[in-house]
Amino acid sequence: MKKTIIETECGIISAASVVGNQEKKGPLGEFFDLHGTDDRFGQKTWERAEAEMQRLALNTALAKCSMRDTDLSAIFAGDLLNQCIGAAYGLQDFDSPYFGLYGACSTAAEGLVLSALVVSGGMMQRTAAVASSHNCTAERQYRSPLEYGAQRAPTAQWTVTGAGAFVVGAEEESAVRICGVLPGRVVEKGVRDSANMGAAMAPAAADTLLRFFAETGTVPGDIDLIVTGDLGCEGGDILCELMQIEGRDIREIYQDCGMMIYDRESQDVHAGGSGCGCSAAVLASYLLPRIAKGDYGRVLFLGTGAMMSPQSIQQGRCIPAVAHLVCLAPREEQV
Amino acid sequence: MKKTIIETECGIISAASVVGNQEKKGPLGEFFDLHGTDDRFGQKTWERAEAEMQRLALNTALAKCSMRDTDLSAIFAGDLLNQCIGAAYGLQDFDSPYFGLYGACSTAAEGLVLSALVVSGGMMQRTAAVASSHNCTAERQYRSPLEYGAQRAPTAQWTVTGAGAFVVGAEEESAVRICGVLPGRVVEKGVRDSANMGAAMAPAAADTLLRFFAETGTVPGDIDLIVTGDLGCEGGDILCELMQIEGRDIREIYQDCGMMIYDRESQDVHAGGSGCGCSAAVLASYLLPRIAKGDYGRVLFLGTGAMMSPQSIQQGRCIPAVAHLVCLAPREEQV
Repeated sequence: MKKTIIETECGIISAASVVGNQEKKGPLGEFFDLHGTDDRFGQKTWERAEAEMQRLALNTALAKCSMRDTDLSAIFAGDLLNQCIGAAYGLQDFDSPYFGLYGACSTAAEGLVLSALVVSGGMMQRTAAVASSHNCTAERQYRSPLEYGAQRAPTAQWTVTGAGAFVVGAEEESAVRICGVLPGRVVEKGVRDSANMGAAMAPAAADTLLRFFAETGTVPGDIDLIVTGDLGCEGGDILCELMQIEGRDIREIYQDCGMMIYDRESQDVHAGGSGCGCSAAVLASYLLPRIAKGDYGRVLFLGTGAMMSPQSIQQGRCIPAVAHLVCLAPREEQV
Repeated sequence: MKKTIIETECGIISAASVVGNQEKKGPLGEFFDLHGTDDRFGQKTWERAEAEMQRLALNTALAKCSMRDTDLSAIFAGDLLNQCIGAAYGLQDFDSPYFGLYGACSTAAEGLVLSALVVSGGMMQRTAAVASSHNCTAERQYRSPLEYGAQRAPTAQWTVTGAGAFVVGAEEESAVRICGVLPGRVVEKGVRDSANMGAAMAPAAADTLLRFFAETGTVPGDIDLIVTGDLGCEGGDILCELMQIEGRDIREIYQDCGMMIYDRESQDVHAGGSGCGCSAAVLASYLLPRIAKGDYGRVLFLGTGAMMSPQSIQQGRCIPAVAHLVCLAPREEQV
């Protein structure tokens, strides 16, 4: 079997998040850096608001580590909008080389994987990874304008209004190490229900996780936390079942950012949160500080993305998905 | 001034192109590997046809160097379609980690830059970069459905139906070296006419080129060929003027893939070709063999991309652009 995990020596120097009103009211509300009360962030359109969240997130992450845009060798960024205009417009004033990504909801992880590869390989000194989503831009692009008040399926997820930014650099200046990355393959298992993206993405997450265990010779017991980006309750269940069938029971160490960001009892989010901003904001503001503190020793962060478009669904195609894995650990931890 | 050029040691092992009917009839027709006569490539929709072109291009590039998908450590791919479904669907059957890119028409160069960085840094052994565009998918997504027969502006360009794929690996196994890369910054100079993308992208190309000359201490006379992706006649003129103002006259060594791929006299393409597939196909099938033969000693390949969306234009925003530079040379050449 060909080895696809790549050991890296680098880390996350700084991270920041920006979220909307619904996310601020959720169980992780106190951890986010910035939030808006009307989800507009002072902008005239939702798309401009999303771009502004990316700008604010990266500005905040840079400020936290007393760096400037010119300290970055590159920015890796993306979002869910057609032609990724959230990233392109939001980050256009940063004086740094720019790589646009499209990894759907796996974008934060994709940016971290690429950052880790170029920093760890000595090709760049410091980079940033940025990702965002906005409930109102996503609803009108993928589903219906908000004003229609369309009814949502029980398996549908709620696109997070949020952005996360990460500054990646040398291990010595980091609080959290990136000790390995495992980029995902495109996996498509015949799901074509775009109101059940968790089901489409779970097989991709299982594919990446199973490769991780097979290639590293580890078992779930060696890991403290496996956290997916936005499988939600449906996709998370499917992932755990798929893993159990393969003899890798992960239920005790498994969490999902989409299940953490909202209170499903009191917030009407159906199967949980989703979107590039979901995993980006939860990782930046809640998970990284806990890893840095040593609450978790070894964490597998799995960004999950469903790469269909409304048009590909209309044309009867199934939903291809991808899951990129980033292996995180506190800096002191000896692995 | 901070250095943004990165020296690399790797090369292009193999490349292939697939084009449509209009491109086959153009001046470079004889050089392309595969072509379709009805631009459908056996598929029911234009979007599926575009995805099929990506699949065919990568398959052909791999076949040329007797490699398989499992020999690749990663694929870097993208296109112009919403959510990049050309790449996601076209490449989903390749058993290799997948990084989705959105660099608009700079995607081929973006994929080559990232490939060069991860291979040269020793993080991956071999990667592929793939990009495509299709005239019929682009027209209906960005402008009007073909059936409307909308009139086009004289500055408008013609989106190329084409795809290109490149296999990147060690210098020793390559015919053409990638000796350096210079990733572009987002540049936006107030152009908001989406029927004149050349004008929007020219300042980004100038920004990258000027940094190249300043950082390397070279002058245009040291370079044998500067070739942009798809500035067309409008953008190309603007680039040459911008460079001249800065004391770097490039006119004698300057070409543009968008100007090379069609015969503007006999083919009704207005300001020239454009699209991710334009630079990808011209580089893969016409330029690389000429560089390998030694017709050019040192070539700067500049992928240019305009990162607006129809929605961002409707919302009154200007067009941000990016230009990624790949420095190419024949393998024997001593630089």
